Amino acid sequence: MTVTMRQESGVFALEMSWRELVGSHLELTGKLRQGRFFPRHELLPLEGDGLWQVGQGVVQLSTAQSNGDEVLVGLAGPGMPLGMPLTGLVSYQARALTDVYCLWLSLAELERSGALAQVLLFQLMRRLRQTEALLAITAGQRRVEDRLRHLLLLLAQEVGEPVPTGVRLAVRLTHQSLANAIGTSRVTCTRLLGRFQTWGWVAWGADRHLLVTQTMPGAREERRAS
Amino acid sequence: MTVTMRQESGVFALEMSWRELVGSHLELTGKLRQGRFFPRHELLPLEGDGLWQVGQGVVQLSTAQSNGDEVLVGLAGPGMPLGMPLTGLVSYQARALTDVYCLWLSLAELERSGALAQVLLFQLMRRLRQTEALLAITAGQRRVEDRLRHLLLLLAQEVGEPVPTGVRLAVRLTHQSLANAIGTSRVTCTRLLGRFQTWGWVAWGADRHLLVTQTMPGAREERRAS
Repeated sequence: MTVTMRQESGVFALEMSWRELVGSHLELTGKLRQGRFFPRHELLPLEGDGLWQVGQGVVQLSTAQSNGDEVLVGLAGPGMPLGMPLTGLVSYQARALTDVYCLWLSLAELERSGALAQVLLFQLMRRLRQTEALLAITAGQRRVEDRLRHLLLLLAQEVGEPVPTGVRLAVRLTHQSLANAIGTSRVTCTRLLGRFQTWGWVAWGADRHLLVTQTMPGAREERRAS
Repeated sequence: MTVTMRQESGVFALEMSWRELVGSHLELTGKLRQGRFFPRHELLPLEGDGLWQVGQGVVQLSTAQSNGDEVLVGLAGPGMPLGMPLTGLVSYQARALTDVYCLWLSLAELERSGALAQVLLFQLMRRLRQTEALLAITAGQRRVEDRLRHLLLLLAQEVGEPVPTGVRLAVRLTHQSLANAIGTSRVTCTRLLGRFQTWGWVAWGADRHLLVTQTMPGAREERRAS
């Protein structure tokens, strides 16, 4: 299996390569740890006694609201943990947004191995930073347009791949997913994306992946910060 | 110094007592670790090379938006870590909501000690669950009334003390803070709190601490879940 890591390692100072992770896990537990493959769109089974750690790909984390809407609460990329011990939400779902390869870590192993806990601790900090950033957008930005713009900048930082004219999102999110992440309707989201495209803030590639351009307000700052 | 822990230990299955924490830290690092006291309202200094772990009291975490509003992004209670390595937000502030006693842990120590990382890992899971719960409220609940109701239920779970008629919040949050947490105005928040009081969902004690009553929709479920 070929493992493709994101090019811009500066995005996460604490990021480890997948090979290093697997290597350290093998070493830490002293046995061959089985990974598991999930094709795109598949739900990851979630149990209360452990965590998945993403090796390759991106997993969308969401929760269903009482009105049936799914609300995006996170994107777990390489290195990041996810699972029931990390959430208090009901109707919690983890869906592969790309082909995904994961390792299963039981809580019992984390309680046994301090070294494994150390690896997870720094990856969990990344999850917290991302969740808090999403929260600051939804709670702090009053205008829907600002929310969508900041969400796209966050996605560029979290799952972006640098290209000459900006940052290409490595995953395809539906307009409904984007709308659910910022508490608005799909119609409003589609209208705003159209406006952003007119203004040259976003573009779509031949593969229908969204491109956040360098002309989007804040895009240069985001890239400098990362 | 007398250390008062919350009565209802079931709220956090992973919670450790302050004495246990201090004990394990002393043991882990083999030296007397100095704690630091912050009186109510004081800002905790935040450095990039370490974390505060709350021993006693509650710290409010917030970020300033471009319009000057402070947005509540978390409440760190006993055991929970906070600090710059855990956030990507600018204008980040940590303010003591009560008298607070904290321990300072450097990242270098966490890199050296797997056992310390294990303690922090389980406490960081609590922070992530809380942040995600706040996110699900702000992104997922369309009606301001529902947002405020769910916020109060979350606060009851996070910083609540059980009393015969419901749960008393151990901290006093201003109407502006509550409003900022759910992206609404202080005026709307005050009006809704008045309505909730009329309906018997909330009450104020002689000490002006808010009481979330058992008649608030969801209150019984929240208590069962905790």
